[in-house]
Amino acid sequence: MIRACLAALALIAPAAALAQTAAPVPAALPGPAEGPRGTGDLGVVIERATGSVLVVDQSDRAALCRVEGLGDLSHASLTFSPDERFAYVFGRDGGLSKVDILTCTLENRIVQGGNAIGGAISDDGKLVAVSNYEPGGVKVFDAGTLEQVADIPMGSKTVGLADAPGSRFVVATWDTGEVWVLDHSVDPANPQVTKIEGVGANPYDALMTADGRTYIVGLFGEKGLTTIDLWADPPQPRRILPDYGKNQPDLPVYKMPHLQGWTLAGSTYALPAVGLHQVLWVDAASGEESGRTDVAGQPVFVTARPDARELWVNFATPDNGTVQVIDGLTHEVKQTLQPGKGILHMEFTPRGREVWLSARDDNKVVILDARSYEKIGEIEAQAPSGIFFTARAHRTGL
Amino acid sequence: MIRACLAALALIAPAAALAQTAAPVPAALPGPAEGPRGTGDLGVVIERATGSVLVVDQSDRAALCRVEGLGDLSHASLTFSPDERFAYVFGRDGGLSKVDILTCTLENRIVQGGNAIGGAISDDGKLVAVSNYEPGGVKVFDAGTLEQVADIPMGSKTVGLADAPGSRFVVATWDTGEVWVLDHSVDPANPQVTKIEGVGANPYDALMTADGRTYIVGLFGEKGLTTIDLWADPPQPRRILPDYGKNQPDLPVYKMPHLQGWTLAGSTYALPAVGLHQVLWVDAASGEESGRTDVAGQPVFVTARPDARELWVNFATPDNGTVQVIDGLTHEVKQTLQPGKGILHMEFTPRGREVWLSARDDNKVVILDARSYEKIGEIEAQAPSGIFFTARAHRTGL
Repeated sequence: MIRACLAALALIAPAAALAQTAAPVPAALPGPAEGPRGTGDLGVVIERATGSVLVVDQSDRAALCRVEGLGDLSHASLTFSPDERFAYVFGRDGGLSKVDILTCTLENRIVQGGNAIGGAISDDGKLVAVSNYEPGGVKVFDAGTLEQVADIPMGSKTVGLADAPGSRFVVATWDTGEVWVLDHSVDPANPQVTKIEGVGANPYDALMTADGRTYIVGLFGEKGLTTIDLWADPPQPRRILPDYGKNQPDLPVYKMPHLQGWTLAGSTYALPAVGLHQVLWVDAASGEESGRTDVAGQPVFVTARPDARELWVNFATPDNGTVQVIDGLTHEVKQTLQPGKGILHMEFTPRGREVWLSARDDNKVVILDARSYEKIGEIEAQAPSGIFFTARAHRTGL
Repeated sequence: MIRACLAALALIAPAAALAQTAAPVPAALPGPAEGPRGTGDLGVVIERATGSVLVVDQSDRAALCRVEGLGDLSHASLTFSPDERFAYVFGRDGGLSKVDILTCTLENRIVQGGNAIGGAISDDGKLVAVSNYEPGGVKVFDAGTLEQVADIPMGSKTVGLADAPGSRFVVATWDTGEVWVLDHSVDPANPQVTKIEGVGANPYDALMTADGRTYIVGLFGEKGLTTIDLWADPPQPRRILPDYGKNQPDLPVYKMPHLQGWTLAGSTYALPAVGLHQVLWVDAASGEESGRTDVAGQPVFVTARPDARELWVNFATPDNGTVQVIDGLTHEVKQTLQPGKGILHMEFTPRGREVWLSARDDNKVVILDARSYEKIGEIEAQAPSGIFFTARAHRTGL
């Protein structure tokens, strides 16, 4: 969900969310399991202030171990290998780290660029791609060895990198307003490039729908959003929501919302309004706005529970201690929660039973029952941000 | 996908598909991995004639080991624990076997009924439910120990057992035409029961949509299908497709199609016609038929590639050596394949890169590239039927 990281934030308003809390002394952890264990219920929590990640066990609601030395994780995201054993962590400093979550070791680490903003893994698990601000473009690595396979300069910073079926990656260019589709299926080192121009001014983030068909680009320099149907030949940009991004003059934008926070519930998209205390509802077929829900602050993520019966929303500062739950049918706020200080991210267990929230300023991960909203656990963590469960390994566009 | 097993077949036409092939002498297998390994890329293949299962590795396209002694697997299905380490195998003889796929051992086995037809695991991974023909009803077991937790007699054979969010199971009753929703969230041993009557004559199978919202019941004694919206309070039966199940007089029904083979591609369901050489297209919102595609035989499974760009169809005897690929946009057959003899099941790798097919009468699993249709591997297996990849652990209704 936060794969492309805080792209807009990094580009336009870095100061607001870089505030970090003094990390506590790490607690002793049990360490990796002895003997065989499955990996379907594991997860990784980014500890943004300390360059470390915490490996967690969903079944026990506990941390297993900490892996350190990953560099600057102030805007980090990660993807998993298909066997759910390795996490590829994309650091802000251009670091690409391969973490073995079963043995709790940093298996490999390279610094592949000067300033990076997220990555993706190909659908066969063989290629890991990273999008860079510095030097721009996309670099592609062998998932086993982290040796460079391809370097695709694009004359631009890149954002919103996502995988698509068939060994493809899709990315948007901040400076030139393009979308590039890289097809590595024939020759991994020399991808076939399909360039889609006229996407709009300054893409700041993008998302891929779960079927790998539709790529949606957020624009910083223009109103509206651009969608691209990757099944079309050739793919064409289509502008939707012409008023999206329009701001009230008296409300500063604390944080551009994550497009990965978008949610498709039934045939409707829910998306965080930019700079407004609202969630917008958009008809997926027509691309037109169908309604709005007033919420407690500027929304960052609007995340559906896996059954899409509810949508959970977190907020930019100063409302980042609040989480609201919206009914997927009525579109009304049904619950307002105060689960902790500095809620940066929410991750549901794969079948929606629990939701794990990173409370950065409480230095813990808070675990709630996703139906009763009761707190059922918490895990000490050092300024946690993104939470990633291994089930992501099996999904497209994450 | 084949969770409720060959329900209709077992009830009405057992002879046709019970033909089994002499199994080959099993090949030596490498055995379980030494040292840590992830479980996200593992799978289990049912060997229907020999009461055994084969543990397979998607990444290596190879078998790892065989686990034997599981009883009558002539109509078997299975579910996985949330950590993707254990498979719960539901045998035709009422056997419930817990297999450790990491160590390749039969960890536990009970015979919980006289004649069983499938099972499910609760969304928290704590309860395993089995639906029985003999003695009827549903029994629920502790997923750790296989000790019985609850016994819910229903005065009927039961079919189409599926999990729903919130520690619930949903099942249809063959004899009495009801659907029961069992809610184990408050007291696992004493589920709250919601009974929905008037579902129709002789439900023979059912499926749950991936969001756990809609339960769809196939009827043997009446035309049409019944859908139930589990978000409604109270849930009500709604009849759709009033002509579904209508047969041409000159075409015997070799096999009632699997409802689990149903596929939702976009806003359209694709489903196998009963006794006809056709796939039907149904508008999901209205429940009305929107078109038909002529295919090479009586379809059994209509399975979408994970991106839903294509749908793959296999067929009842005598056409079970053929597989057809239908374009998800045009609804036209785009490819006809002959991948092997006696194709009983198709399973896609989670992100749709490959499709694995069980060729029962060739005693092998055939692996195709899901885009080029080229054969990229095969695995020796003894009369293989269902193929189950561990990614199923993370999905609702499987």
